[in-house]
Amino acid sequence: MKIKFFAVGGTIDKIYFDALSEYEVGESNIADILKDARVNFQFDIISLLKKDSLDMTYEDRLKIKQVIKDEPNDKIIITHGTDTMIETAKALGRVKNKVIVFTGAMIPAKFKSSDAIFNLGLAVAAVQILPHGVYLAISGRIFSPENVKKNRALKQFE
Amino acid sequence: MKIKFFAVGGTIDKIYFDALSEYEVGESNIADILKDARVNFQFDIISLLKKDSLDMTYEDRLKIKQVIKDEPNDKIIITHGTDTMIETAKALGRVKNKVIVFTGAMIPAKFKSSDAIFNLGLAVAAVQILPHGVYLAISGRIFSPENVKKNRALKQFE
Amino acid sequence: MKIKFFAVGGTIDKIYFDALSEYEVGESNIADILKDARVNFQFDIISLLKKDSLDMTYEDRLKIKQVIKDEPNDKIIITHGTDTMIETAKALGRVKNKVIVFTGAMIPAKFKSSDAIFNLGLAVAAVQILPHGVYLAISGRIFSPENVKKNRALKQFE
Amino acid sequence: MKIKFFAVGGTIDKIYFDALSEYEVGESNIADILKDARVNFQFDIISLLKKDSLDMTYEDRLKIKQVIKDEPNDKIIITHGTDTMIETAKALGRVKNKVIVFTGAMIPAKFKSSDAIFNLGLAVAAVQILPHGVYLAISGRIFSPENVKKNRALKQFE
Repeated sequence: MKIKFFAVGGTIDKIYFDALSEYEVGESNIADILKDARVNFQFDIISLLKKDSLDMTYEDRLKIKQVIKDEPNDKIIITHGTDTMIETAKALGRVKNKVIVFTGAMIPAKFKSSDAIFNLGLAVAAVQILPHGVYLAISGRIFSPENVKKNRALKQFE
Repeated sequence: MKIKFFAVGGTIDKIYFDALSEYEVGESNIADILKDARVNFQFDIISLLKKDSLDMTYEDRLKIKQVIKDEPNDKIIITHGTDTMIETAKALGRVKNKVIVFTGAMIPAKFKSSDAIFNLGLAVAAVQILPHGVYLAISGRIFSPENVKKNRALKQFE
Repeated sequence: MKIKFFAVGGTIDKIYFDALSEYEVGESNIADILKDARVNFQFDIISLLKKDSLDMTYEDRLKIKQVIKDEPNDKIIITHGTDTMIETAKALGRVKNKVIVFTGAMIPAKFKSSDAIFNLGLAVAAVQILPHGVYLAISGRIFSPENVKKNRALKQFE
Repeated sequence: MKIKFFAVGGTIDKIYFDALSEYEVGESNIADILKDARVNFQFDIISLLKKDSLDMTYEDRLKIKQVIKDEPNDKIIITHGTDTMIETAKALGRVKNKVIVFTGAMIPAKFKSSDAIFNLGLAVAAVQILPHGVYLAISGRIFSPENVKKNRALKQFE
């Protein structure tokens, strides 16, 4: 089994710069998490974009759509900011021959109490079990993009 | 959706006593992990046993089997030591109306680089997607008990 | 031995809100750190201010000065933002009958790779050994406020 | 300023092998801790022994004593198991021209809630402030070897 990961930014990869307390999207944390998880499958990780999901444009979504279309592997996980994850998932349209699972985090992976590691485990199970299609794996649940919204106050998808 | 968790011991819940460098199975870490993961489902956690899985007896497995049989909820995750997880999964025999997912950890959950959080995410996705039956969710994979072994040297199931 | 801690804000206590990626100063982390450190001394922790140190005003510094003057305990640690820690330390003027140690962090305490725990250990040793006066304990060093500057690029005091 | 670190083993560097739940002393964690702490001083780290302190022999202590005598740097920190740290400190006898600070941990450094990072911060401040002599820095305190004992039940020195 092989899983292809695309990191496009979002809270999951945010790091802290004390200079004026700004945040920025840093390197993807996927490789470190998979190493600690001692996973027994092949994987590639591609850093496609490093954007806060509120800054993601129509062109960015076209690019993600094209990259996924061109990707020969049929198991794909995309780490994405939670604010517009649903929009990007919907923008992919119908996907016939692949399983695409979006995940991300409410708290950056570099925090002690982040949800990033759990969410990645959730996505890894989902991508190898589910039938072809596009899904969100977050808040301990598997959602269809048509049937989910983010509850910002609770920091949960529902 | 509701998931019922049974903790029966194993490395995942091991803690450290410096007195003579012994290890012992402590309290279950499931509740803390689900809290950080900000999961959006109902759950119960039952601590059934606190055993190193090498010490698990025939009577222990009978007890687990009975408890699962009596459990009305159909989504069940069992955290279990990795050394005899496969034996316990096989001992459950055929399960008709439930999804049972075993998981655990190679490194105790209280370690910084533990696989426990990822594995629990994996199990939570598996238990809500898979058809009725008994499975192992570990090493980033979903296995049937009939078709898996632990590679102790690599600290992986395969 | 008793140590009095005053938290006035800064990076050490910053938390993350995913809403628009803002940062804010949260509750002090001192109590949790001292618990894990299993310290064998008495202590009180007072949250005096929750400010980014760049926002600290002349009135804030007057308040800190007055609180320290009124404090009967002679061993005092102040957790403070690093950007103006030196200014606040100088603003205390001469302190005759107390040891005042400023510390803080370049990376919030809630991050896995924060310097907060180490810095607090450094300050706790300093406050119980040093003669009366005002000091900074950070970057693995003990500094006099008159003889230190922050190197923002290196994230170190020197 | 330069600090010389000698790691001789103990709980601070213990790692976990799931094979039969044994513990062993692994590589020293000092370098990683000093990197996160962003320290601004020179240092060398020497791994001298990897022993549980209960296994330390008369010959081991002679070796430590000789290495310290031959060491030209006058600021020395020794990470050591807590069970016989006091005995080793006493075995050094009078030290005229150096500051020797022993530290260690009740919980291995690789645990999330370890006291190792705090204790190392404590030792680093102590070694640069204290007059020549031999000390223990642990439990948030600085002790003379003649005037301290380990309270195993409380996991504290007093």
